Amino acid sequence: MINPDAVNNLKEIVGRNRCFDSPEQLTCYCYDAYFEEAMPDLVLFPCTRDEVSNILKICSAHKIPVTARGAGTSVCGASIPAKGGVVLCFSKMNRILEINTKDRYVIVEPGVVNADLQKALAPFGFFYPPDPGSMAVSTIGGNVAQNAGGPRCLKYGVTVDYILGMEVVLASGKVVRFGSRNVKDVTGYRLSSLFCGSEGTLGMVTSVILKVLPLPESVSTLLVTFDDLDNTANAVADIIGDGILPVALELMDKTTIRTIEEKAHIGLPVDAEGTLLIEVDGVKEACEKEIKKITEKLEANGAVNIEVAKSEAEREKLWQARRSAYGVFAKLSPNLYTEDIVVPAGKIPEMTRMIVDIADKYKLTVGVMAHAGDGNMHPMIPADKADKEAWGRVEKAFDEIMAAAASLNGTLSGEHGIGLAKTEYLPLVMNEDAIEFMGVIKNAVDPDGILNPGKFV
Amino acid sequence: MINPDAVNNLKEIVGRNRCFDSPEQLTCYCYDAYFEEAMPDLVLFPCTRDEVSNILKICSAHKIPVTARGAGTSVCGASIPAKGGVVLCFSKMNRILEINTKDRYVIVEPGVVNADLQKALAPFGFFYPPDPGSMAVSTIGGNVAQNAGGPRCLKYGVTVDYILGMEVVLASGKVVRFGSRNVKDVTGYRLSSLFCGSEGTLGMVTSVILKVLPLPESVSTLLVTFDDLDNTANAVADIIGDGILPVALELMDKTTIRTIEEKAHIGLPVDAEGTLLIEVDGVKEACEKEIKKITEKLEANGAVNIEVAKSEAEREKLWQARRSAYGVFAKLSPNLYTEDIVVPAGKIPEMTRMIVDIADKYKLTVGVMAHAGDGNMHPMIPADKADKEAWGRVEKAFDEIMAAAASLNGTLSGEHGIGLAKTEYLPLVMNEDAIEFMGVIKNAVDPDGILNPGKFV
Ligand SMILES: Cc1cc2nc3c(=O)[nH]c(=O)nc-3n(C[C@H](O)[C@H](O)[C@H](O)COP(=O)(O)OP(=O)(O)OC[C@H]3O[C@@H](n4cnc5c(N)ncnc54)[C@H](O)[C@@H]3O)c2cc1C
Ligand SMILES: Cc1cc2nc3c(=O)[nH]c(=O)nc-3n(C[C@H](O)[C@H](O)[C@H](O)COP(=O)(O)OP(=O)(O)OC[C@H]3O[C@@H](n4cnc5c(N)ncnc54)[C@H](O)[C@@H]3O)c2cc1C
Repeated sequence: MINPDAVNNLKEIVGRNRCFDSPEQLTCYCYDAYFEEAMPDLVLFPCTRDEVSNILKICSAHKIPVTARGAGTSVCGASIPAKGGVVLCFSKMNRILEINTKDRYVIVEPGVVNADLQKALAPFGFFYPPDPGSMAVSTIGGNVAQNAGGPRCLKYGVTVDYILGMEVVLASGKVVRFGSRNVKDVTGYRLSSLFCGSEGTLGMVTSVILKVLPLPESVSTLLVTFDDLDNTANAVADIIGDGILPVALELMDKTTIRTIEEKAHIGLPVDAEGTLLIEVDGVKEACEKEIKKITEKLEANGAVNIEVAKSEAEREKLWQARRSAYGVFAKLSPNLYTEDIVVPAGKIPEMTRMIVDIADKYKLTVGVMAHAGDGNMHPMIPADKADKEAWGRVEKAFDEIMAAAASLNGTLSGEHGIGLAKTEYLPLVMNEDAIEFMGVIKNAVDPDGILNPGKFV
Repeated sequence: MINPDAVNNLKEIVGRNRCFDSPEQLTCYCYDAYFEEAMPDLVLFPCTRDEVSNILKICSAHKIPVTARGAGTSVCGASIPAKGGVVLCFSKMNRILEINTKDRYVIVEPGVVNADLQKALAPFGFFYPPDPGSMAVSTIGGNVAQNAGGPRCLKYGVTVDYILGMEVVLASGKVVRFGSRNVKDVTGYRLSSLFCGSEGTLGMVTSVILKVLPLPESVSTLLVTFDDLDNTANAVADIIGDGILPVALELMDKTTIRTIEEKAHIGLPVDAEGTLLIEVDGVKEACEKEIKKITEKLEANGAVNIEVAKSEAEREKLWQARRSAYGVFAKLSPNLYTEDIVVPAGKIPEMTRMIVDIADKYKLTVGVMAHAGDGNMHPMIPADKADKEAWGRVEKAFDEIMAAAASLNGTLSGEHGIGLAKTEYLPLVMNEDAIEFMGVIKNAVDPDGILNPGKFV
């Protein structure tokens, strides 16, 4: 329970309408897309930077935990208020403050939904490259705090590559601004990059200056079918290893394709052992050349069928199918365990085989799905946490998958983050002094440990 | 003077051959490309990470200042040992540890010269995009610690965009490793980005994992002549504002062109009021299309002459000319004051006029040179520090230029850094709490302040 005086002061800052404190209301903020839960004491919806600052001053004074929340789509439990206290939900700080395509930046509040930013940019012929599968609902604040990726990050890079500047409210309530509107800026430490990916453990992002890009002249999308999963994975390693850089290169195995098709009925190749969804963009002639090179690699690796999307509608249908994978799998069972390991692209064949073998060993159904071009793999295992025996096998399988990734010079997370889910695995990929060093930074920036406590640091 | 026992211990670590302590030797390490000087007590040339760690343990125990040094080409005084002590020169830690173009990374020691890395990559058909003007001599360690840029960073981004992972020795001698070989990696705080651009004030980089890219199929380079400097700058704003993204878009004014031509005799257009050096790359057809679009913009802005480099030799000649600018200007007078401000590309016309007006006001010769496409401007003023009156005017002019950049939403430094040169200007672009926050990080990471003391933090 938090101090009643503090509660009253906090309520005064945002007013009655922007404060939730009844159990029914609080329940909606005790979970995210991971499968643990923790109840907050209070949920506040600030509208301005100053409100955020005043809230943090009070929380600091009373050492009340504060966990930021965007849309709550984190799949590592990053937005769960593990130690209770205040949830600071940014959904009402959702204004696009400036669009300047001549100078290629936008300034947005953290609650802006990724897809809304895309919609606002499209009339200018511009886009914001990071495209997490959750883009229809997830917020820029959440994207920044998780350093979100997405399919087209293969060519375009991830969230951190688009952050030019940032305003942050520290635990003390102090407001700091880093960076500028300029792509080149070495004025002092590169602190926006430190806050990016810090999962709300270092400060509250209250506005962001993001780089945006002109839309490409032309886009082509291929759906490629293989009758062998090894061949599918080899094709990926071969394309990337040859220096080709598509926008996106997504791999799905038979289980994934079938599960999607059962729900979506869009005519996916259900007999395929593996499929690749490949997209290229740029000047039309460049796309054609790239597709030619890619096609050669696909054929050399035994592709059975290569289909080009014939219209924007067809293209959108393929992507919808891909994006639905998580949701569709999530409905198969009470819980869904999704992994997010990364390996160098050349190791995709080996890692794919290891995932399949590990799932077999533990008698589990696995859907292998990957942003394969950048080595970021999302094997999905539908499971039931209540079934202790089965859940134990799931956990063992994931232990082995993470260890396997680490053994191939890979890492624990490509885009989903560490949150509650992966803290114990950090030693697989970081040396002890480096883990301790994260604590040094955390303690210096948030000495009372009030920001998103109970997470990886 | 540093403790004699410590000196002996330090000498033992590297051995007699890799330790300088005579005044003649030390003098060579008291300066860089900025115009201040400070004598070190000792210069050490470590060959391994463990030597670096042992050196730092001793320096920590005795609170001896340690300043890292690559090639000493910093133009902000970052590598000057402002408080004496030890200079740790990384020139002998210059091995390329791994080249893996299939997975698109290299692992290098900090003393590797940028151009040597490019040479090693070329046979694989790959390159490392950041290309500072100093690339023939400057080191990857220095590039990383300064977050170096260069002409082609307009399209390709700066050093930080290519850092996948890093090994750092902290002030305590502890060794920490962050990141991995993977482009996507959100395993913990993004600490390599914090060390990048920190100018040796947070730790010693002992190896780096860098992303590399396949060489483009085709490159085209244009030299464009204008009879009006405003038109030249407007053309830049117009090209960038229209969503075109060349590899490089370099602006030089009459003074710059003439000064280079006088020394280099390569037939530069000495009567031009402004010139643009423009490069595009990619698939051949895409280059052609891009050049067509650029040409339209150039003509609409009154370009007088557009010349395409007809061979690789001609192209190289143009770039040599551009790269020689700093050296040629440096020979005009005892000192050369180079600025490094950045403004959003749309403000290039206004900023260019402001620079010319300010130089006129203070009766100074200025060469206007800019990585104009990304708004990064390097006005150069030849001057003589010994002439107090003239030097006073130079300093006033630069004060005004920096304030002007800040007033246009620009910033103090695009690539050269803060070092000794610009600490006092930080409040122009950072709020007080943000400056203080840099100190919080510095104190936490280097509590005794032994790493590169006397600099911006
Ligand atoms: C179906 C589905 C598909 C997904 N696909 C992808 C994908 O392709 N790529 C990918 O990267 N992720 C993906 N995710 C994960 C998730 O959507 C992303 O991590 C996203 O960035 C979270 O945004 P959010 O607004 O939901 O943030 P939340 O989940 O609410 O919060 C995430 C973290 O950010 C912090 N935070 C939120 N706002 C702020 C703020 N203003 N200041 C400081 N910290 C803040 C929170 O404290 C928390 O630690 C997916 C999730 C789902 C459910
Ligand atoms: C003619 C000329 C042209 C230039 N053109 C450009 C340009 O186009 N773009 C650009 O960005 N810069 C440019 N510069 C500036 C300079 O070359 C760059 O800043 C370069 O990155 C410095 O590299 P260096 O090896 O000389 O490092 P140094 O000058 O020796 O050191 C620079 C900083 O890095 C630190 N450092 C060095 N090694 C390490 C290490 N291993 N660990 C931790 N810290 C370390 C030093 O302490 C110092 O703070 C130019 C300079 C000159 C003289």
